[in-house]
Amino acid sequence: MLNEFSLISRYFSRHEKSPDAAILGVGDDCALLAPRPGRVLAISTDMLVEDRHFFAGADARALGHKTLAVNLSDLAAMGAAARAFTLALALPSIDEAWLEAFSDGLYALADRSGCELIGGDTTKGPLTLCVTVFGDVEATRALRRDAAAPGDDIWISGTLGDARLALGGLREEWPLTPEDLATARRAMDWPEPRLALGAALAGVAHAALDISDGLAGDVLHILERSNAGARIDLDALPRSAILANQPAMIQRQCTVAGGDDYELCFTAPVTARDAVLAAGASCRVPVTRVGTITAFDTRADEARIVWTDGDGKPVPLALRGFDHFDD
Amino acid sequence: MLNEFSLISRYFSRHEKSPDAAILGVGDDCALLAPRPGRVLAISTDMLVEDRHFFAGADARALGHKTLAVNLSDLAAMGAAARAFTLALALPSIDEAWLEAFSDGLYALADRSGCELIGGDTTKGPLTLCVTVFGDVEATRALRRDAAAPGDDIWISGTLGDARLALGGLREEWPLTPEDLATARRAMDWPEPRLALGAALAGVAHAALDISDGLAGDVLHILERSNAGARIDLDALPRSAILANQPAMIQRQCTVAGGDDYELCFTAPVTARDAVLAAGASCRVPVTRVGTITAFDTRADEARIVWTDGDGKPVPLALRGFDHFDD
Repeated sequence: MLNEFSLISRYFSRHEKSPDAAILGVGDDCALLAPRPGRVLAISTDMLVEDRHFFAGADARALGHKTLAVNLSDLAAMGAAARAFTLALALPSIDEAWLEAFSDGLYALADRSGCELIGGDTTKGPLTLCVTVFGDVEATRALRRDAAAPGDDIWISGTLGDARLALGGLREEWPLTPEDLATARRAMDWPEPRLALGAALAGVAHAALDISDGLAGDVLHILERSNAGARIDLDALPRSAILANQPAMIQRQCTVAGGDDYELCFTAPVTARDAVLAAGASCRVPVTRVGTITAFDTRADEARIVWTDGDGKPVPLALRGFDHFDD
Repeated sequence: MLNEFSLISRYFSRHEKSPDAAILGVGDDCALLAPRPGRVLAISTDMLVEDRHFFAGADARALGHKTLAVNLSDLAAMGAAARAFTLALALPSIDEAWLEAFSDGLYALADRSGCELIGGDTTKGPLTLCVTVFGDVEATRALRRDAAAPGDDIWISGTLGDARLALGGLREEWPLTPEDLATARRAMDWPEPRLALGAALAGVAHAALDISDGLAGDVLHILERSNAGARIDLDALPRSAILANQPAMIQRQCTVAGGDDYELCFTAPVTARDAVLAAGASCRVPVTRVGTITAFDTRADEARIVWTDGDGKPVPLALRGFDHFDD
C-alpha cells in the first residue's frame, strides 16, 4: 500500500533537470523559482472538480493532460513562456493504474511545454485537482485584458465550439454521428494550450484572454477592463468542418456560448494584421479576424457587444457564458 | 443571487495596494509578480478538504485564517517573507454569511502578513480550499531541509501538541475540562505562522521545516534529505501548561505524533545558540533546544532517530506521523 509520501515520489517526482529548472523543486517546504533576467513571473490557478469539470470515470490520461492544459492556456493568454507548476490533488483512494495514467498525461504535456512540477499536496477527498502554473514574460510585453483600444481588430485562434458540440452530443441535446462525436470529443478532452502563439503575439497584440467559459462571456472581461465595446461578426467565427455541418442554431450556441475552447481571443491594431498572420503561420495555428473594438460610453443605454451577421446586420443574441454556480 | 464573478469581486478583491504589491493582481488570465532584487520566489501549495482537514460546519472565520496560515507556515519554514497568494475554492453553494466570515478571517491574516491575494478560481463542488502562497528570500539564506549537519542542535518554536490535544478531546479519546478544550482548540483553529522567526533564522539556522503532520514523521524529512540521524529528548519537547497537566502517554502522543502544530523545527550549529535565542526573543517566540543531529550510516541497522528521556536513556517509540491516506 502506497502512502502519501511514496505516492508523491513514485508518480510526481522527476530527476532530470532542464537548464531553466527551478532552484529547488519538489520535497522542501517551498520550491524556489526566479523569473529569467528582465522578466516577471506570470501566475494562474485553476481547480477542476469531478462531475463539474469532468465526468466521473473520465479517462485519467486525458484528465492529466487537461488539468495542466487549462492552466497553460492562461499563460498563453498572457504571452508568457511556461516554467513550472504545482499540483494539489484530493483523491478518494489510491488507485495506482489511475495515478500512472494521470501522471503520464500530465507529464507528456509538461515535458513538451518545458514546465516542471515543483511542488504539490495530496490528500484524501472527493476527486479535485488544483494546478497553479508559473510562466515568465517581459512585463511591458504581457498581453493584459485592459489593453484593447478602439479600432483594434478582434482575432480568434483555431476554431470554437467543438468541445460544446461534444458535450451536447454526450448529453443527447442533439444527435451526432459516432465519428463526429469522437472528433469533437478530442477537442473537449485534449485541448491544446496556445503557448507558442501567445509568446509570438507578446509585443504585437494589445489585449488577450483564453476562452474557457464561452466567447460571449469571456470577451466581456476584455471590454469591461478596457472600457470598450465590440462589434463581432457571428458568421466569421471560426469553426471546424463538423460543426459547420450542424444546424445554424447549434453552430451559434457552440461558438458563442460554448466554453472549454482554450483558444485565444486577442485584439491588435489594424497595422499589425500582417504581423498577426505571420505569428499564426509561424506557430501553425489559424488566426481569424472576427470583429472590431469600439468606443463605448457606459452612460449610454447600448449593448457592449453588437453581434452581426456576415452582412453587418445586427443579430439579437440572448446567449451568455458559463457560470460555475448555475446548474 | 451572486454569480461566480460578482462573488470574486465582492469577497476577494481589494483595491488598496502596498508598495510591494504585485505588478498585476486579480482579474487577468495571470497575475504578474517578481521577487524583490537579489531574491527568488518561494512557493508552496496546500489543499484543505472538509471532513479531512476541518469539521463540516467549522467556523468560517477560523477556517479563512487557517487556510492561509498553514501555507504561510511553509514560507516561514523557508525563511521567506510573505508576498502574495492565490485561492481556489470549491463551494457547495453560495452562502453569503459564510463567505463574509471566511474572507474576513483570511484577510485579517493576509493584511498583517503583507500577503496580497493575486488570483483565484471558484467553482461549485464539495467544500475544498487550495491556496498557493508566494514569498521571497535570498536563495543562499533559504532554510532548506537538506542542510542539517551532524552536531547541529535541534530546536522547536512555541509548544507542540495542543491541536492534537483538542482533537482528542473533541473525539472523546480523552476527557478535557471545557476550559482546557477551549484553550487547546484555539491552537487547532488559529495557528500562528512563524514568519518573523523564520525570517530572523534565515542565514542563522541550517535546516528547517514546519511541523504539520507530527514531529516524528516531519523531522524524518530533514534527516533523510540531509543524510543524517537525530537524538531527541522527549522530556525537553516544549508543551503548554494544559498539556503538561495531562497523563504522560497523552503528552507524548500529542507532542511527538500530533500534527497541526505549525511550529518550526530547525537545526543550527552549536556556535549559533546565542543568535537563535536572540532571534526568538526579538520575535517573542519561545525557542527550545530538544536534541542533536547525528551522523547516520544508511547501511547500519539502526534507527534514524534515537528518542531519549531527560536522563539520556533511550525510549522505544512506535508513534509516527500523520498519513493523509490512513483512515
